[in-house]
Amino acid sequence: MKRVAASIITIGDELLIGQVVDTNSAWMAQELNKAGIWMKRRIAVGDVWNEIWNTLNEESEKSQIILITGGLGPTADDITKPLLCEYFGGKLVFDEGALNNVKNIFENILKRPMIERNLKQAEVPDVCTVIQNKRGTAPGMWFEKDGRIFVSMPGVPHEMKGMMTDYVLPELKKKFSLPFILHKTLLTAGIGESFLAEHIEKFETALPEHIKLAYLPNYGMVRLRLTATGDDKSILENELSQQFDTLKKLTAEWTAIDEDLSMSQAVAKLLKQRNQTVGTAESCTGGYIAHLITSEAGSSEYYKGSVVSYANETKEHILHVNPQTLETAGAVSQETVHQMVEGALLQLNTDYVVATSGIMGPDGGTTDKPVGTVWIAVGNRDKIIEQKFYFRFDRSRNIELTATNALNMLRKFISEH
Amino acid sequence: MKRVAASIITIGDELLIGQVVDTNSAWMAQELNKAGIWMKRRIAVGDVWNEIWNTLNEESEKSQIILITGGLGPTADDITKPLLCEYFGGKLVFDEGALNNVKNIFENILKRPMIERNLKQAEVPDVCTVIQNKRGTAPGMWFEKDGRIFVSMPGVPHEMKGMMTDYVLPELKKKFSLPFILHKTLLTAGIGESFLAEHIEKFETALPEHIKLAYLPNYGMVRLRLTATGDDKSILENELSQQFDTLKKLTAEWTAIDEDLSMSQAVAKLLKQRNQTVGTAESCTGGYIAHLITSEAGSSEYYKGSVVSYANETKEHILHVNPQTLETAGAVSQETVHQMVEGALLQLNTDYVVATSGIMGPDGGTTDKPVGTVWIAVGNRDKIIEQKFYFRFDRSRNIELTATNALNMLRKFISEH
Repeated sequence: MKRVAASIITIGDELLIGQVVDTNSAWMAQELNKAGIWMKRRIAVGDVWNEIWNTLNEESEKSQIILITGGLGPTADDITKPLLCEYFGGKLVFDEGALNNVKNIFENILKRPMIERNLKQAEVPDVCTVIQNKRGTAPGMWFEKDGRIFVSMPGVPHEMKGMMTDYVLPELKKKFSLPFILHKTLLTAGIGESFLAEHIEKFETALPEHIKLAYLPNYGMVRLRLTATGDDKSILENELSQQFDTLKKLTAEWTAIDEDLSMSQAVAKLLKQRNQTVGTAESCTGGYIAHLITSEAGSSEYYKGSVVSYANETKEHILHVNPQTLETAGAVSQETVHQMVEGALLQLNTDYVVATSGIMGPDGGTTDKPVGTVWIAVGNRDKIIEQKFYFRFDRSRNIELTATNALNMLRKFISEH
Repeated sequence: MKRVAASIITIGDELLIGQVVDTNSAWMAQELNKAGIWMKRRIAVGDVWNEIWNTLNEESEKSQIILITGGLGPTADDITKPLLCEYFGGKLVFDEGALNNVKNIFENILKRPMIERNLKQAEVPDVCTVIQNKRGTAPGMWFEKDGRIFVSMPGVPHEMKGMMTDYVLPELKKKFSLPFILHKTLLTAGIGESFLAEHIEKFETALPEHIKLAYLPNYGMVRLRLTATGDDKSILENELSQQFDTLKKLTAEWTAIDEDLSMSQAVAKLLKQRNQTVGTAESCTGGYIAHLITSEAGSSEYYKGSVVSYANETKEHILHVNPQTLETAGAVSQETVHQMVEGALLQLNTDYVVATSGIMGPDGGTTDKPVGTVWIAVGNRDKIIEQKFYFRFDRSRNIELTATNALNMLRKFISEH
């Protein structure tokens, strides 16, 4: 089986020095991988002529496909276009399609006058195939040289995604005869990575060469991914299914989700199947669980809303938590989260509620309740259960861990009641 | 001025194929940059022996400092440690400090029995300086070879951050005589990148060689960053201040924040200065504004909470939006967000409220109100203002844009009332 390798080059000081987190590369890598292209390397370089030039040379020795993002903006620090023009030995010319696109965006969408600088965005090297940008002003560029394909796209995520989906991926699939790459994943909870590895060691060792197992630990849970690579799709699907079934049986005790869904997607799937609704009552997670749930398209079907009761008076006033409870047991207590669920079930008129209260840090901890102490409750009108957690991390990680565990408790409660 | 260059190498298939977004590199790059170290390249490679080996060779030719994360877990796909051992010509030995750390974590924190695999985490090449891991089981490793420094750390973000802060950065500062790198940033709103560039072109061209201007567009706003590099800190501070003052004057019309603060940090600063509080009433942002506000440590000082009224009945029941309004004007209307602010001011008993309602997509759009139509209102007990927006993007970007603009309206309203 011949592998087609790809490198991704990200250009721009803001990415290199970490002012911006690079989410583009992850998305691009996933799409390439799904298409059967082997991700070989990802490189981030600054807006430095020699750096970019050398990286193009180096990566073209390693990969057949080189995808480049960034450095196509209208300002002086954006040097990608003139560099590519020189690299591939062309000269800059106006592209009519790109020019009309820029004009259209300014006249009909931005409704602002255009300046010279904007027009220059429609210039392209005459040695490339232009990729029209339906979502912005900078066109993409497709170059071929010595059997290598180089594609330059803007760094703006939704512009890059549009070009990849509409043009780049379909064209790459046409150019190369690609193997099938299939994945199956499951998510375990409540078991450490090393114990899991010990438990399934024989299974892992016995896997055929073309099926690989990966451990993806995240927020106290471990996702297991089986990846199969081959030329015959139906044989491959069959093999992968069989191995996956074995893996599922081996890990049944800890498996929370046996498909490639996030926690909030798994909750969504359950609620839609049952035609039921959920609401949240969040103190320490401060709306983050609501955000995870409402990030899914169509969540209005099953999500009623949240009372983010950050202040105690909000817990009392909207959720009717007993002031006495807040005073004696405290805001971070079994009683409080229990009452938060009761209050939110009524206020949000919903089938299920999950509630959180805890100390996320860095301040607010006490000897009795150190930073990381969290109570989570989940329930319906018949039953409410509470659980105490203790996370030992920084604020953002504590918030993530609380939200993930709350959604897992919710998922479990729904599937059992 | 001699520059000390660094490369960051990230090891692991899960990062390379995009299963996990790499946030480590951005953080590390920022810290190196602050320390006066020049970020030269960032490379992500898979768990492939030759790939890692060649990348070590290549980067050691380009940079004096090579920081490596990932591939130190206890499972079979983690090959970084044996590879580094061979690369630097050592052999694996047990490190007593690391061993005690692993034992302590299992006995006192995880409270689980330890297995062989866990003990092996305390093995290190005998040719490295061990960096103790206070937050996990895998120790870090510091190697020196041919005047290059190589540091290997776990890929778990808070473990890596602990090692960087406690050991790696202080040691690097001791090893090298580093220049000062100073940044000053401001955030503009309501002006496009190319117009801004046109407006400050002369300023940019006239900047001295050692002060650079960068444009960082994000969610419809553009952050401008001045970076000065030099050996004399006080001269540098002076020069940078002067240039920054000029820049501020030039962009005064559009400047939202004239320091390196996020929107939610700027809001926090204003509220703390005034000893006032805020609450949110979110429909389309689904708790995301609440999450941005509560991500800041100490937000309980000025944040009362949110009513995430995703369902119309929640808008009616908790926020007392008039059912008539919802029927005639609709949930996405000036009237509805106005009433959401009124309701939340009372329910959350707070000085200010910001409210959102819109259609985030991909479904739910109509001819009158296409996907991306958003109403935002902000107000206090004396005055409420509303503004309509139209974002043309995908769900997650529409949510981001709505939240950023809502926080900006809030910031402006607070500073003007």
